[in-house]
Amino acid sequence: MPTQSGLAALPIADLRDRHAEYTTQYETLVARGLSLDLTRGKPAPEQLDLSNELLSLPGDTYTSPDGTDTRNYGGNKGLPALRAIFADLLNTHVDTLIAQGNSSLEVMHDLVLFSMLHGNNDSATPWVREERIRFLAPVPGYDRHFAVCAHLGIDLIPVPLGEDGPDVDTIRSLVAQDPSIKGIWCVPTYSNPTGVTYSEDVVNALVSMPTAAPDFRIWWDNAYAVHTLVDEAPKAIDILTLAADAGHPNRPYVIASTSKITFAGAGVAFLGTSQANLTWYLGHTGKRSIGPDKVNQLRHLLFLKDAQGVRDLMAKHRDILAPKFDAVLSILNERLGTLNVATWSQPEGGYFISLDVVPGTARRVIQLAAQAGIALTAAGSAFPGGNDPQDTNIRLAPSYPTLDAVREAMDGVATCVLLAAAEHALATHTATDIPE
Amino acid sequence: MPTQSGLAALPIADLRDRHAEYTTQYETLVARGLSLDLTRGKPAPEQLDLSNELLSLPGDTYTSPDGTDTRNYGGNKGLPALRAIFADLLNTHVDTLIAQGNSSLEVMHDLVLFSMLHGNNDSATPWVREERIRFLAPVPGYDRHFAVCAHLGIDLIPVPLGEDGPDVDTIRSLVAQDPSIKGIWCVPTYSNPTGVTYSEDVVNALVSMPTAAPDFRIWWDNAYAVHTLVDEAPKAIDILTLAADAGHPNRPYVIASTSKITFAGAGVAFLGTSQANLTWYLGHTGKRSIGPDKVNQLRHLLFLKDAQGVRDLMAKHRDILAPKFDAVLSILNERLGTLNVATWSQPEGGYFISLDVVPGTARRVIQLAAQAGIALTAAGSAFPGGNDPQDTNIRLAPSYPTLDAVREAMDGVATCVLLAAAEHALATHTATDIPE
Repeated sequence: MPTQSGLAALPIADLRDRHAEYTTQYETLVARGLSLDLTRGKPAPEQLDLSNELLSLPGDTYTSPDGTDTRNYGGNKGLPALRAIFADLLNTHVDTLIAQGNSSLEVMHDLVLFSMLHGNNDSATPWVREERIRFLAPVPGYDRHFAVCAHLGIDLIPVPLGEDGPDVDTIRSLVAQDPSIKGIWCVPTYSNPTGVTYSEDVVNALVSMPTAAPDFRIWWDNAYAVHTLVDEAPKAIDILTLAADAGHPNRPYVIASTSKITFAGAGVAFLGTSQANLTWYLGHTGKRSIGPDKVNQLRHLLFLKDAQGVRDLMAKHRDILAPKFDAVLSILNERLGTLNVATWSQPEGGYFISLDVVPGTARRVIQLAAQAGIALTAAGSAFPGGNDPQDTNIRLAPSYPTLDAVREAMDGVATCVLLAAAEHALATHTATDIPE
Repeated sequence: MPTQSGLAALPIADLRDRHAEYTTQYETLVARGLSLDLTRGKPAPEQLDLSNELLSLPGDTYTSPDGTDTRNYGGNKGLPALRAIFADLLNTHVDTLIAQGNSSLEVMHDLVLFSMLHGNNDSATPWVREERIRFLAPVPGYDRHFAVCAHLGIDLIPVPLGEDGPDVDTIRSLVAQDPSIKGIWCVPTYSNPTGVTYSEDVVNALVSMPTAAPDFRIWWDNAYAVHTLVDEAPKAIDILTLAADAGHPNRPYVIASTSKITFAGAGVAFLGTSQANLTWYLGHTGKRSIGPDKVNQLRHLLFLKDAQGVRDLMAKHRDILAPKFDAVLSILNERLGTLNVATWSQPEGGYFISLDVVPGTARRVIQLAAQAGIALTAAGSAFPGGNDPQDTNIRLAPSYPTLDAVREAMDGVATCVLLAAAEHALATHTATDIPE
């Protein structure tokens, strides 16, 4: 977090000069009439091109290795051979990892929804019958997770996310006492948006801690398990075994998908959890569907082939993504590095860079950028209810635009950060702050 | 319904002879050690083969006619060009017909689920907060419809299904008085399992009748809209316009899918309804998913091309299906036609033949068939709670087995019907019934 040095510590005259300089830069920026978008973690077209082989698969076959005619009804657990690939990558077990439709958000949503309507397999009652249901929300976090809860009237309790995962001391004391806390949203690898990867100590704490709610669950959204920007992704922690060893086999729901591996809109989602949880989940989804799209699962199996096939594909994604992330980081460094107006994450994977600007100016930065034709994710979107208490966080998503557009957009964002910081420093400046 | 003539009216000695004859036939049947299945309405492999072009589509394109990159996230209403084809076939409007995932059951389920948790756009309160929720179930009907309700604690009220749709007098008086009745399940074309198609009078009655519940809805599952066994399917009735004209624009949910047009497990589902209902539905699904699989929608668009393309494809399905239906009907006629032990539907489309055996013997027939290696749908499955009050109805699904297997299975079923009828007649026979 920026402190009183750098820009804010300048003598008032210098500060006025800076403000004038940034205003001129900003006017030049606005005059360019840009239309750039850093809002969402969407793969770029050239990333999608990497999987274009899928467009003519499965080709002249429709039978999966286990002999299933994938074209017909049935098979609500998905194709075993595809499940095996992702069991390997997620370091879990094919028997209890199932393949579903095209969206892991759907799976996570339905796990919440079925719990609301029926309770889960450790619940005494449907959650809708309880006075209040609350989830823990490590922040900054993923807005769509929070939206699922908000939409269902589930309260979210923000918990700080540190360098190796959420603050387990805070979590431990909350869940030990409050039976209304039924869940926590986790993105354990290259977390959205900070890029943090949970340590094994944190995972062990989460699966072993006593909870007042017997039906407490961890929504373990391992969306970026293989999405590395460095040589190798960290090996996924086998949370299901750790949880079972800790006496809480039903606690984690491991979730992933191929959305940012193959096609974002036409991939395959996965759910790994205990056998008891799976039986419960399939008992509910079995009323909803006669089974997921197995042809798409076969298509993915033939294209990806095995876990190494996925890793090789992710290396190609990295070749496209890494220069964009590097561009963001180098522009932030060049333009803001010495002025103490911002800090930012330096992620080794995932889809986002988390930028913390001068507290009280995130909204202003986003507004300035919008006026200059640069769309940024809405202020506070990484916080429950859109409420960033410090008005400091901005989520940057550099994946979709071209490298040139990323550079152009980020140079503009830097100008907005500087102008907002100068405005803020001027507004809060008093002569007594700065001995001259 | 069989009456006291035919087999049951035979003199006791003749009846004993018949029973002995059918017992011998049955023993021969059992000795053959068959393994045949008439349980579910699954397309046969040769029907699925008709759409094998899909296996290598969309090929070298991924852009829909409206310019969408189908590979990426987004677009929760689906591709307009595919929606236009099914708006044509369903006689509804492309603006308010959306394309979703691979299962229309999912759409129907979620419409119920969202209503339970949130209420629909005409509800005063979420349905879970009401003391009791009830749906009307025209019987015989589709077991999976009923299972959605039963699973959510929604009571089902059976209503008789006649030759031109459900009994509207009964329905009118029920819904006029009881605000807990929130919905009705309808399969308006070639109804599952009786093959009945609703008349325009019935549809008009359903959309115009006053209902005590302001949030009453019709789940209009037009699953077999184009699935004809004769030259031409009846033109779909434009229920949305009729409902709007009657002042109840939000009443119908029109639902369909390509499951029995292309691939049963990998098709596209559709929902057509009022704009207000769509806004409500998308507001809830928008928390659940970033959009359906648009690549699969493009694949279907390129394969089906237009409404005539669908009709041409259905004609090929008919070429495969019609001989199987003919075989069932001719065997029933030959073996049971003169003995007054059964009646059956003679459907002009759809996937089922509804067989009514001597009341009190359906369970026995199904048990005898199972012992002979012929799987039939569970007794009572076309009734809420599996409760066929007369124990008379059996749903026959001849689509999946080969034509030879259908013949073999139906000959066996006829033997079982006869044996059960003879057993029943003997058990209920008294000398006074039959003057000798």
